[in-house]
Amino acid sequence: MIRSQLRIIRSITRTMSTPSEAVPKSGGKLQFTLKTPKGTKDWAEKDMVIREAIFSQLSSLFKRHGGITLDTPVFELREILAGKYGEDSKLIYNLEDQGGELCSLRYDLTVPFARYVAMNNVQSIKRYHIAKVYRRDQPAMTKGRMREFYQCDFDVAGTYESMVPDAEILSILVEGLTSLGIKDFKVKMNHRKILDGIFQIAGVKDEDVRKISSAVDKLDKSPWEVVKKEITIEKGQTEETANIIGEYVKLNGSLETIHDILSKDKAFQANEKAVEGLKEIETLISYVKAFGIQDYISFDLSLARGLDYYTGIIYEAVTAASAPPKNASELKEKSKKQKKDDDDASEYVGVGSIAAGGRYDNLVNMFGEASGKKSTSIPCVGISFGVERIFSLIKQRVEQSNNVRPTATQVFVMAFGGGKDWTGYLPERMKVAKMLWENGIEAEYVYKSKANPRKQFDAAEKSGCPLAVILGKEEYLENKLRVKRLGPEFANDDGELIDAADLISVVKEKLSQVHENGVDEVTRLIKGL
Amino acid sequence: MIRSQLRIIRSITRTMSTPSEAVPKSGGKLQFTLKTPKGTKDWAEKDMVIREAIFSQLSSLFKRHGGITLDTPVFELREILAGKYGEDSKLIYNLEDQGGELCSLRYDLTVPFARYVAMNNVQSIKRYHIAKVYRRDQPAMTKGRMREFYQCDFDVAGTYESMVPDAEILSILVEGLTSLGIKDFKVKMNHRKILDGIFQIAGVKDEDVRKISSAVDKLDKSPWEVVKKEITIEKGQTEETANIIGEYVKLNGSLETIHDILSKDKAFQANEKAVEGLKEIETLISYVKAFGIQDYISFDLSLARGLDYYTGIIYEAVTAASAPPKNASELKEKSKKQKKDDDDASEYVGVGSIAAGGRYDNLVNMFGEASGKKSTSIPCVGISFGVERIFSLIKQRVEQSNNVRPTATQVFVMAFGGGKDWTGYLPERMKVAKMLWENGIEAEYVYKSKANPRKQFDAAEKSGCPLAVILGKEEYLENKLRVKRLGPEFANDDGELIDAADLISVVKEKLSQVHENGVDEVTRLIKGL
Repeated sequence: MIRSQLRIIRSITRTMSTPSEAVPKSGGKLQFTLKTPKGTKDWAEKDMVIREAIFSQLSSLFKRHGGITLDTPVFELREILAGKYGEDSKLIYNLEDQGGELCSLRYDLTVPFARYVAMNNVQSIKRYHIAKVYRRDQPAMTKGRMREFYQCDFDVAGTYESMVPDAEILSILVEGLTSLGIKDFKVKMNHRKILDGIFQIAGVKDEDVRKISSAVDKLDKSPWEVVKKEITIEKGQTEETANIIGEYVKLNGSLETIHDILSKDKAFQANEKAVEGLKEIETLISYVKAFGIQDYISFDLSLARGLDYYTGIIYEAVTAASAPPKNASELKEKSKKQKKDDDDASEYVGVGSIAAGGRYDNLVNMFGEASGKKSTSIPCVGISFGVERIFSLIKQRVEQSNNVRPTATQVFVMAFGGGKDWTGYLPERMKVAKMLWENGIEAEYVYKSKANPRKQFDAAEKSGCPLAVILGKEEYLENKLRVKRLGPEFANDDGELIDAADLISVVKEKLSQVHENGVDEVTRLIKGL
Repeated sequence: MIRSQLRIIRSITRTMSTPSEAVPKSGGKLQFTLKTPKGTKDWAEKDMVIREAIFSQLSSLFKRHGGITLDTPVFELREILAGKYGEDSKLIYNLEDQGGELCSLRYDLTVPFARYVAMNNVQSIKRYHIAKVYRRDQPAMTKGRMREFYQCDFDVAGTYESMVPDAEILSILVEGLTSLGIKDFKVKMNHRKILDGIFQIAGVKDEDVRKISSAVDKLDKSPWEVVKKEITIEKGQTEETANIIGEYVKLNGSLETIHDILSKDKAFQANEKAVEGLKEIETLISYVKAFGIQDYISFDLSLARGLDYYTGIIYEAVTAASAPPKNASELKEKSKKQKKDDDDASEYVGVGSIAAGGRYDNLVNMFGEASGKKSTSIPCVGISFGVERIFSLIKQRVEQSNNVRPTATQVFVMAFGGGKDWTGYLPERMKVAKMLWENGIEAEYVYKSKANPRKQFDAAEKSGCPLAVILGKEEYLENKLRVKRLGPEFANDDGELIDAADLISVVKEKLSQVHENGVDEVTRLIKGL
């Protein structure tokens, strides 16, 4: 469904000029293309069932860790978002100035969370938030890179012992991905203080650090030579500086291995900031061991992460699908030359990171200061799962099953009869359905007075529900109902004739037999069991 | 929490000039008020728990009726929303033109649903959608009238026998409100064809019908004399026309009573459209009786509903709190005179309708035509629950209870020890918590190496969780853990010393004792049990 829909969108958007605009039709009426805005899509049917199962897994996970949920508005005052996202600020969606306040759609859930903490003088909180965020980025729909997409965030705010909440956040990251059946991932980790220390060692001036940092951040997509060119030619650093950075950022391995290398590096040990960061990594090592998650973590000095607000450890989870295809730049060039509508970059990008986060100790304080409150530092650390990207990874696994059905219907209420005086028992079916609903049982019936048996069975089969309750023309007059199992293996089974008064107990009993295996199919598939 | 926050917002917004803008602070840094945009708010803590319980009730209800869920983007192409909302179109939020397509935030969930049905050539669907919609209206926060608010919609699309899905939608409306503990409501109902017929009878020209209809719609807030003035003076109808309209729209009573009156009205019976509508009401009567909901319904010829797209029956559920206070217009004048910031209209408006909907048979077709597809009519009927308004009604009921806690935490993991060599067992607590998490049990611990017992108990008490697992300094070395019930009645209970290997089974057993009463407190309160 979604796939065919995407095909339609793509074929439409390729043939039309951008922006899509209403054009007058013969007769003066407006005509326009029926589509969702670029980089957005409808979620429906099986895809929606799967996505809800993912949300359910993640919200249980967050609740297991003591999280409470928070819901902030989809737009914020424009000042709130200003100066938080570095180069990516240009991707923020603004609301039109229609009088009153100037607002923008949220770009992530972290900044609104920090705004909430500052505004309400919250001293400590573990909160989770599952909601949509908005970025005017180049979409890659089949890879799950959208302009409107869900984030599932867990953040801990409050002043605590060094690295203690950080370690739990990392455990949540690992628990979250494994609970979604994703096992072949690694968590790249770095520390902003270590990175800043390295830049100092290499001779980068303080005011240049963020732009050099964002150049280094491209190392997952581009080779060192390209990044080096950006650092030296575009961003004006010396060859010498670039080489020192190059030596450090190529380091990666287990937390302990890289910790040992840096501990013996004299230049590194001479830099106060770098040593401070490394000491935190040292503390972290014993905690990740307690959680048994050390093998997932790769200490990777090239990880920089674009956002301005990180101050401590930073991390992102990647899989084989995260990287772009090997011939990505070639494909990109080709696509540019063909001048085809650039609506979908799926061909030449990877899925990217599937979860990411870090420590941001000054963000709440920035809001406090900006609003003239007394300065109170509320350190924070958090993780954000990218559901669309995770979805694109597990979709195939789930699609192979035919057992995912979009409705929850358990009982189909039917009536069989005939002859001239046959009314079709529509109000009677309604009464029976109502009784089932009142007892919490999902029930449907055909919206037709005189529906023939075949059509009623077809409708039941289409819904995939396991039981039928049948009102026979004569049987019903004797207060009897027929309860029958549905499905090909019960084709020759006439079901059981029961007293109408026993309907609920019989249906509940039969449904408990159907569902005795416990875990439902979708959850089983999501978990990769 | 939310209440105090609202107080803060109000006090802030009253003292500041509108629009709130960043003003330079001494030192050149920007300073701004820390708030959410006008008419929006954060949902947190107990309020959020309650709202989630409401969503859970409603989504179970929708699933019981065979609904599948759909998620559409928060913004649509601007053409999609154009011409659907009559006078209210001015309340639509536009996104800024940042290049590319022109988009607007959705105003309801109905138009995006119709767009989805048309775009995908869906022939029939029962869908539900719980999501936020946006209206640049005058907010009344304490009454649940917001600019960003949730709607919970259920709609049936497809060609079916007359009034069959309509009756089920009405049953869903009644089941939904009663399942939320709201019992003192009535469902005002009318029919667009009957209303249009009445306007024809009164001599209103076709092109004037919608504007006269929207005048009549104000009868729930204004007396007839005021509405009559609008019809004659503002909207140019004759005294005679207004008087005829006045005679009809004052009618209300049970479906059968009003049906009987109109059946004997000669002028009415001579109007084709009116008779058509009345015949549908006749069909509906037997179905609402089958569902046993006839007593909730009041046939009210003054109900008009503002939206352009309705074509059949229309309805809205109201309670005593729906109406504005008796001295509303007086309060409004006073507020205007005081020239105080008009940020909140709570004082002089009612809660309004708490659920509303109707039949709209041409909306899908409008999209089909506009996009140049062959004309295929997909009739639709639906209901929308206004969660914020319902929330404001049941909040008091739930707030009286102290048993609503924001976290789901079941176990607090603690360590007791002392002496010089006491490490505080932090990694050990982490290990125990991890074991609990892996077995699906919600667990927390204090983020501190050496936390004293008092602080650990305080934290557990604050979370309201029922169990503690305690690592005693010596006991833990012998692979023993202590499991203890929390709460004032267990103050003198030392708990049970168990083998560490039995932890999960013992904790699960004890938790099942705690929760043996089944229905959780929030659901009980929401349902008004």
